[in-house]
Amino acid sequence: MSGDNTQVCLAARPQGLPKSSDWEIRKTPIPEAGPDQFVAEVLYISLDPAMRGWMNDARSYIEPVEIGAVMRAGGIARVRESNLAEFSVGDEVFCFTGVQQFVVSDGSGVQKVDASAAPLPTYLGALGMTGLTAYFGLLDVADLKPEDIVVISGAAGAVGSVAGQIARIKGCRTVGIAGGPEKCAYLVDELGFDAAIDYKSDSLRDSLREHCPKGIDVFFDNVGGETLNTVLPMMRMHGRIAICGAISQYNNTGPVVGPSNYMSLLVSRARMEGFVVFDYAHRFNEAYAAMGGWLAEGKLKSKEQIEDGVDQFPSVLLKLFEGGNFGKLIIRNTDAF
Amino acid sequence: MSGDNTQVCLAARPQGLPKSSDWEIRKTPIPEAGPDQFVAEVLYISLDPAMRGWMNDARSYIEPVEIGAVMRAGGIARVRESNLAEFSVGDEVFCFTGVQQFVVSDGSGVQKVDASAAPLPTYLGALGMTGLTAYFGLLDVADLKPEDIVVISGAAGAVGSVAGQIARIKGCRTVGIAGGPEKCAYLVDELGFDAAIDYKSDSLRDSLREHCPKGIDVFFDNVGGETLNTVLPMMRMHGRIAICGAISQYNNTGPVVGPSNYMSLLVSRARMEGFVVFDYAHRFNEAYAAMGGWLAEGKLKSKEQIEDGVDQFPSVLLKLFEGGNFGKLIIRNTDAF
Repeated sequence: MSGDNTQVCLAARPQGLPKSSDWEIRKTPIPEAGPDQFVAEVLYISLDPAMRGWMNDARSYIEPVEIGAVMRAGGIARVRESNLAEFSVGDEVFCFTGVQQFVVSDGSGVQKVDASAAPLPTYLGALGMTGLTAYFGLLDVADLKPEDIVVISGAAGAVGSVAGQIARIKGCRTVGIAGGPEKCAYLVDELGFDAAIDYKSDSLRDSLREHCPKGIDVFFDNVGGETLNTVLPMMRMHGRIAICGAISQYNNTGPVVGPSNYMSLLVSRARMEGFVVFDYAHRFNEAYAAMGGWLAEGKLKSKEQIEDGVDQFPSVLLKLFEGGNFGKLIIRNTDAF
Repeated sequence: MSGDNTQVCLAARPQGLPKSSDWEIRKTPIPEAGPDQFVAEVLYISLDPAMRGWMNDARSYIEPVEIGAVMRAGGIARVRESNLAEFSVGDEVFCFTGVQQFVVSDGSGVQKVDASAAPLPTYLGALGMTGLTAYFGLLDVADLKPEDIVVISGAAGAVGSVAGQIARIKGCRTVGIAGGPEKCAYLVDELGFDAAIDYKSDSLRDSLREHCPKGIDVFFDNVGGETLNTVLPMMRMHGRIAICGAISQYNNTGPVVGPSNYMSLLVSRARMEGFVVFDYAHRFNEAYAAMGGWLAEGKLKSKEQIEDGVDQFPSVLLKLFEGGNFGKLIIRNTDAF
């Protein structure tokens, strides 16, 4: 192999939205595989709101990315050189590739994917961490039941769109919150949500009352802030709020907005619970089987928005925080195609 | 019967701390029992932080007290006249007496109490709703396990002091948060807490780190506000926060302070859950048996602060919000003794 490995490295810890000077684009030689390693060429890189948290120097569910290190990311890669018996040249795998063109791995945490079963980007969407997050957040953390009235925030996003579809598949009344008429129409017309609320133009409170007149049993929250606060007093008895994310708050330079209506949890005997998908690794196969079946039956749709160029990562990432993506945001390593 | 029935009625919905003009002291004739009623003379009235919520015209777990109505309260009363077969003159009962000297009842929700088994005020404390709240909040909502590290806010209050003792009885490391050295000494020396933190003089964050260096598994919260917010980032993996109350916020005239650190729930895969003791009515006997046993064995202490005079209710109530009570706050109907 010859040529460069373009890497996107964290240069500084951002204040608010990450800016270009927070990143360094580095070109290094394509790595070679050591004795118990393989080298793979990255094909697709997953962009996730959680990345913003990984850039902070704060206690969290995962170590912060160090200054100077390649930005952490999940991705799909194809093995180019292997000194590991379990991986052969040509194997396509999911792993933490990082935001770069080539990755060296010792095989730990690497999962093979099958391009004949589903398009490769789907393994970053409905068949990836995104889909698993929706699956376990909704079915396990929120303990979904068929009679539940379900509200999803960030419903046109990667996790939200899958969560809403799972709720619908399970027979629940499902209402999505998203930004803009195009996204809302997509949720209802394409994904089968019962209703969608455009938070940019509607009064969230009035619209929730209209579409959930009996209240809300399950809230799957990707957004936090005022959205969470507005939903809290509408929770029904023994309601469940699964805290998946708080994208509205990730780039705050001031303090996070806490949910001042949290005492509604007492009024409704409701609970609010956080989760991290990695905890469910022992049950991933159960979820893959279910999601794969729904995809095959056409009950579940996986929508990806694919952008070109690893070096474009700094600007593409911002789409997540500006409502600029529609479905799962992915970067394609153009040089690999 | 002749004489007056002194009643404390809600005259106006308070802004912030209830003031004397929010109340009307009314003298009415002592009621007579109708065909399926009894009349009882009130002996002891329970004062609870939750009363502040009942005075607001807001959706809650119970209807607001109407303007002009006798203030709602639990109490112990002695039957003086009865047209109900189940209740005889002289029976001592717990019921919603209201803040007044005599109560008329149709018998619904009335429980007999046994003065030979425990002092009557204890049926408003450890053997009353107070104790039941601690019992179910800790053992059921927070799902207490013997190895848990437990923190209780409002730990010298009625519910908190019982909750802490139950945690200690179950073998947990138990740390209380209370106001002032006297209360803190009581928690450790008399009630067997492992440590107590004086929020008035100590840095809560530093003290929690000192006394719970491994973090907190269970937080039983009576206080809310900054106390809850400080505890949240210290929760351990799969920690549980039982939301019993938020006394720091009940008299806010501005917006409630929401817990800006709520995303710690995600980091720690923790949950925060509200509850109301009335939901556990079908299991009250289980709790009475346990609490009665612990009281008899001397493992559990019930502390009451008894004040005189039904008409003193408006000023005595304020002690709850000013840290002026120590244990269960009760008003004695002096005229009945």
